[in-house]
Amino acid sequence: MGRLAIIGVGLIGGSLARALKARGLVDEVVGNGRNEATLRQAVDLGVIDRYELDPAAAVAGADMVVVCVPMGAMRAVLDSLRPGLADDAVVTDVGSAKGSVVRDAESAFGEVPDYLVPGHPIAGTERSGVEASFAELYRQRRVILTPLPHTRADAVARVRAMWEAAGADVVEMEVEHHDEILAATSHLPHMLAFGLVDTLSRWEGAGEIFEFAAGGFRDFTRIASSDPVMWRDICIANRGALLNALKRYRDDLDGLIEMVERGDATSIESLFRDAKATRDRFVERLENREKGARA
Amino acid sequence: MGRLAIIGVGLIGGSLARALKARGLVDEVVGNGRNEATLRQAVDLGVIDRYELDPAAAVAGADMVVVCVPMGAMRAVLDSLRPGLADDAVVTDVGSAKGSVVRDAESAFGEVPDYLVPGHPIAGTERSGVEASFAELYRQRRVILTPLPHTRADAVARVRAMWEAAGADVVEMEVEHHDEILAATSHLPHMLAFGLVDTLSRWEGAGEIFEFAAGGFRDFTRIASSDPVMWRDICIANRGALLNALKRYRDDLDGLIEMVERGDATSIESLFRDAKATRDRFVERLENREKGARA
Repeated sequence: MGRLAIIGVGLIGGSLARALKARGLVDEVVGNGRNEATLRQAVDLGVIDRYELDPAAAVAGADMVVVCVPMGAMRAVLDSLRPGLADDAVVTDVGSAKGSVVRDAESAFGEVPDYLVPGHPIAGTERSGVEASFAELYRQRRVILTPLPHTRADAVARVRAMWEAAGADVVEMEVEHHDEILAATSHLPHMLAFGLVDTLSRWEGAGEIFEFAAGGFRDFTRIASSDPVMWRDICIANRGALLNALKRYRDDLDGLIEMVERGDATSIESLFRDAKATRDRFVERLENREKGARA
Repeated sequence: MGRLAIIGVGLIGGSLARALKARGLVDEVVGNGRNEATLRQAVDLGVIDRYELDPAAAVAGADMVVVCVPMGAMRAVLDSLRPGLADDAVVTDVGSAKGSVVRDAESAFGEVPDYLVPGHPIAGTERSGVEASFAELYRQRRVILTPLPHTRADAVARVRAMWEAAGADVVEMEVEHHDEILAATSHLPHMLAFGLVDTLSRWEGAGEIFEFAAGGFRDFTRIASSDPVMWRDICIANRGALLNALKRYRDDLDGLIEMVERGDATSIESLFRDAKATRDRFVERLENREKGARA
């Protein structure tokens, strides 16, 4: 890869740049973002080689453009980088919802360009910012690409090769399927964690309540320390699939409340037992994958 | 302390015995439980000195009796150990709900004995069993005692001294207040985590769904790997306070669902921002306390 443009240099874009630079797979990385101090910091950290404050200037001459901005900024960013795109440029993004990226691209370009490959690396921490970025973030992580029927196969292949070079396992699926899966496994849990902290913070004597919360509560609410703006945007961007997941959960919660109300020990135990078995199996598989990552 | 009887030798009782033995504060620890193999293992591990299969025999001659059984077994265990209690014995328990222990004691003894001190160490891991026990489990952890107005002050003082010797911070509060706080900070999160895994396990294509769950999901659902029987019993034992917490949460979740439904980005961001700030403050205080524990 000759020139890589990273639009939005934070944890996600910064870690990708670090991974590709570490393997010597890119000649030059150009950064772009709204905050010049952050871009300067990214240069100082060696994450990017230089920066441009104008998105169109940043993408000029780039073979690959990776858009790593909050979903709410996607439409405006696609608009503003468009004039600078080289003829053979491939564009991809890292947004947590893919239907909204497709809609934003239609709106910005008239139709979704055949060189745009919607993508989503399933990686991250509750920290954010370029200072949190590291080259190993994507090792053995999943990256989901959701090309449309008319997306060029060579564009998909180049985006796939980039993520594989960063250490990721790349899979492809349809836009709607991606959005449903992510609503269930990521967006819904974030809502529940933010929601729990919100509920407790408005409890009478909330200060005392938190005094008696312990390590289990810390783990359970870790994702409630995530970036509020990013998550606000995900709620809006993936509204349909998220609402479906939230309502399924709410209905199931009503079922559990009824079990507790009628003191139905048998049903409660059965639910807990099945959930524990499912969760234990999930963790075992995840840890095997992580062992693979370290090896 | 001369003789300590541990009724139910698992993570909680085993760790207490280890802590007191490590400091040479007890002459003899006698264990009791339903499973003789576990009791033998506890002897082999040096957690207890010997065991008795009959609860009344186990408590005979003990200065202190600590009941560490699932809440559903409390009533029957109190009944069966009663005939063996020495005149000057103090009895305490470690149940996660205190109102039900008071009711069980009333039912087993006619009235709550003035030498019974309901207690609850806020400590544990998602693992259970004597093989998971360790002497440091209670260091800098909170232990809540909920004596009744007629509980003897010297009995409270002896239970407090025991937990402090194991490294814990002991606080006293009323039974109902304990049950409300624990419902909010512990029992409710466990319901939400069990519930989430349950909801996802019944999703179409659940196997694939879990393939794309990552580290955030693992943390969020860690408490769903807790012991199903123990948690079934807690649901029943603390039903009133738990239902109150579950319903508050359900109502707040409805509010969040409405925000997402109407695309109210401002309210969503404000909720996330407040939740993150509250959670970050909680973690900072918890980590300061843990630093104190290691020092």
